Amino acid sequence: MPEQSPLTSALDVAEGDPFGPHNLPYGVFSTADAPERRRVGVRIGNHVLDAGAAALALGSPYAQLLAQPSLNPLLAAGRTAWRDVRRALTAWVTSPAHREDIEPLLHPLGAVTLHLPYEVADYVDFYASEHHATNVGRIFRPDGDALTPNWKHLPIGYHGRSGTVVVSGTDVVRPSGQRKTPADAAPVFGPSVKLDIEAEVGFVVGTPSELGKPVGLAEFRDHVFGLSLLNDWSARDLQAWEYVPLGPFLGKSFATSVSAWVTPLEALEEARVALPARDVPVLPYLDDSDEEEAGGLDLRISFSINGVVVSEPPFSTMYWSAAQMLAHMTVNGASLRTGDLYGSGTVSGAETGQRGSLLELTWNGTEPIELPTGKRTFLEDGDEVTLTAWAPGPDGTKVGLGEVSGRIVGRG
Amino acid sequence: MPEQSPLTSALDVAEGDPFGPHNLPYGVFSTADAPERRRVGVRIGNHVLDAGAAALALGSPYAQLLAQPSLNPLLAAGRTAWRDVRRALTAWVTSPAHREDIEPLLHPLGAVTLHLPYEVADYVDFYASEHHATNVGRIFRPDGDALTPNWKHLPIGYHGRSGTVVVSGTDVVRPSGQRKTPADAAPVFGPSVKLDIEAEVGFVVGTPSELGKPVGLAEFRDHVFGLSLLNDWSARDLQAWEYVPLGPFLGKSFATSVSAWVTPLEALEEARVALPARDVPVLPYLDDSDEEEAGGLDLRISFSINGVVVSEPPFSTMYWSAAQMLAHMTVNGASLRTGDLYGSGTVSGAETGQRGSLLELTWNGTEPIELPTGKRTFLEDGDEVTLTAWAPGPDGTKVGLGEVSGRIVGRG
Repeated sequence: MPEQSPLTSALDVAEGDPFGPHNLPYGVFSTADAPERRRVGVRIGNHVLDAGAAALALGSPYAQLLAQPSLNPLLAAGRTAWRDVRRALTAWVTSPAHREDIEPLLHPLGAVTLHLPYEVADYVDFYASEHHATNVGRIFRPDGDALTPNWKHLPIGYHGRSGTVVVSGTDVVRPSGQRKTPADAAPVFGPSVKLDIEAEVGFVVGTPSELGKPVGLAEFRDHVFGLSLLNDWSARDLQAWEYVPLGPFLGKSFATSVSAWVTPLEALEEARVALPARDVPVLPYLDDSDEEEAGGLDLRISFSINGVVVSEPPFSTMYWSAAQMLAHMTVNGASLRTGDLYGSGTVSGAETGQRGSLLELTWNGTEPIELPTGKRTFLEDGDEVTLTAWAPGPDGTKVGLGEVSGRIVGRG
Repeated sequence: MPEQSPLTSALDVAEGDPFGPHNLPYGVFSTADAPERRRVGVRIGNHVLDAGAAALALGSPYAQLLAQPSLNPLLAAGRTAWRDVRRALTAWVTSPAHREDIEPLLHPLGAVTLHLPYEVADYVDFYASEHHATNVGRIFRPDGDALTPNWKHLPIGYHGRSGTVVVSGTDVVRPSGQRKTPADAAPVFGPSVKLDIEAEVGFVVGTPSELGKPVGLAEFRDHVFGLSLLNDWSARDLQAWEYVPLGPFLGKSFATSVSAWVTPLEALEEARVALPARDVPVLPYLDDSDEEEAGGLDLRISFSINGVVVSEPPFSTMYWSAAQMLAHMTVNGASLRTGDLYGSGTVSGAETGQRGSLLELTWNGTEPIELPTGKRTFLEDGDEVTLTAWAPGPDGTKVGLGEVSGRIVGRG
């Protein structure tokens, strides 16, 4: 090994590091010497700050929110607490006065185990990219309209399985199930032959709401704490056979991967952009034309298989905003709980190289893509899928989103 | 008032009482003097036994499972524990030796508040009645086949919102949302005008399973603890506009009511019956022709509005069994958690008077029913819906299922 230069402080994050002190995403980690002791961690560069230990060491009033095995208490504490804790953390990692206390509480990223950072309450998945929905419509209903009549009137969504939301790095067992193509006389059973990914952004609810009381567009930032990348693994063959009339079930429920890091919305102020132009008027509860809080986010996603980038879906092209999804999800009075997670649906841009699923990239397997590891229509056992993303931050910085990765394994 | 005979022991349950010692369903209650102290209760006649206090008073090893604010620890303890606890409870409420200890721990049913008895993990709803699915198909697709091509090959299901599962007695706020009939040029927004119920049976999972490992038909009773009545409130107008292509969402997610009492499967041994004949062969993982554990349940449901019975759906007519639903739900490797709840879907028999929804009873509002409180197509504000049921028990007894009721209130 080459000789290394002497270590400087772990707090001296390189210029241009997307996990500098302007970012500070939250996660939950443990260390090899105490694998059962899960703790809230904050990422700074290539290190993880034990946030609860820092709060205790500095006599901070936020120890009760941070010295926890899960992000749930912080999520439940509400927007003012989120802001105050972030301010405190920023001071701890940037002020020379705290350096002596903080440095011993940093763990190298490679030396910790990262866990699912919050308990997922309900998981909802939307379908908010016009390019994605149009591609899917063209593939499966070539003779009909690409978009269903409701698509531009409401953000279509459905509930998924919260018990199979797993943290980045968890292997994904190839699901078995029924499939039936028009050529089959009867359904056949076996491992999925069309295993796919969906590159999405997942929004994490902090503040709960009351049953029977809708949450309006303007309340989005009071309820949603942050976001992370999300991979909604999809078995297209299982899904195609099962989904009429009640929607996706086993084609999706075997696993959904999320990043170990939740990026607070406050770190993404510079990433706010206008949504694409809408060509159909919406009902008042979805009308964000006058809303300060609505709008898009400029998140630039990268989807790679076995280390090779296959597409770069731009979140800024989404038709529906995260605030609109939340307003729609609750307009019937459905309540929110701390830990509710909702996905945007596959992020696909207008260009071929911006499609967030293999279904679209290979046009349902008819146009394979070439990788150094071989031709691909859908995923093979052993394939490792990784999503990364960044967003514009303050003063020309980049805000990195934590990656979400997973490897496909055959059923043993 | 007529003079009453002197009270005998609350343990002297009348002959024919469907909540006699052969039943013993579990719930969670609190009393007015300690409203915050939720406790596991067991129903005996018109009383509730404080099960944890009984276990402590009798020095029982099950105190740790029963002296709890939720059924979750008992649910998680597994089948052997379920059997042993039930045996102990049966002895406590029937043996004269325990009478002196037990009697002071009984609370009149009318004097307690009943709570949601377990934390709902994932909620899945199936569609397992052939009569119901056929009726719905005829109503919504009059020119097509009533059943979709997949219907007899797999139990169709989808995920619902676990955060809005509420206990019997909770008022249901009429949901607002989008609807659009063919006559409307654009969707309109407002309170649902087709608010309906679905009479269902809900199965409660106790023992969890491992991600990636299907749970076979024969393992049903190792994982499922018991069942209760369930009302899957449905806004038909919202649902009709939103559900293509990803299934029901806001039309269902505003509320799902469950009984306060969970009846253990062990109390329903005498209710086991053969399923109706199947006319389409199924894949091996659903083939219960040789399975001791599969089969139907003779549960006789009664659906009433404002105290008047409007139908009596027989659960014995369901096409798919609860074991088949579980095997299907996990065949893709999806894991189970303690507290998972899955509904059967609307229970409808072959006869008109056996239909478990107003959609079917009034043929989508075209054939109103007459009640003493007026004509009904769908539910009016103020209507109270109640589901009750019983099953054959040992020695000619009836096993009562706890009722599930809810009243519709307009949005304030």
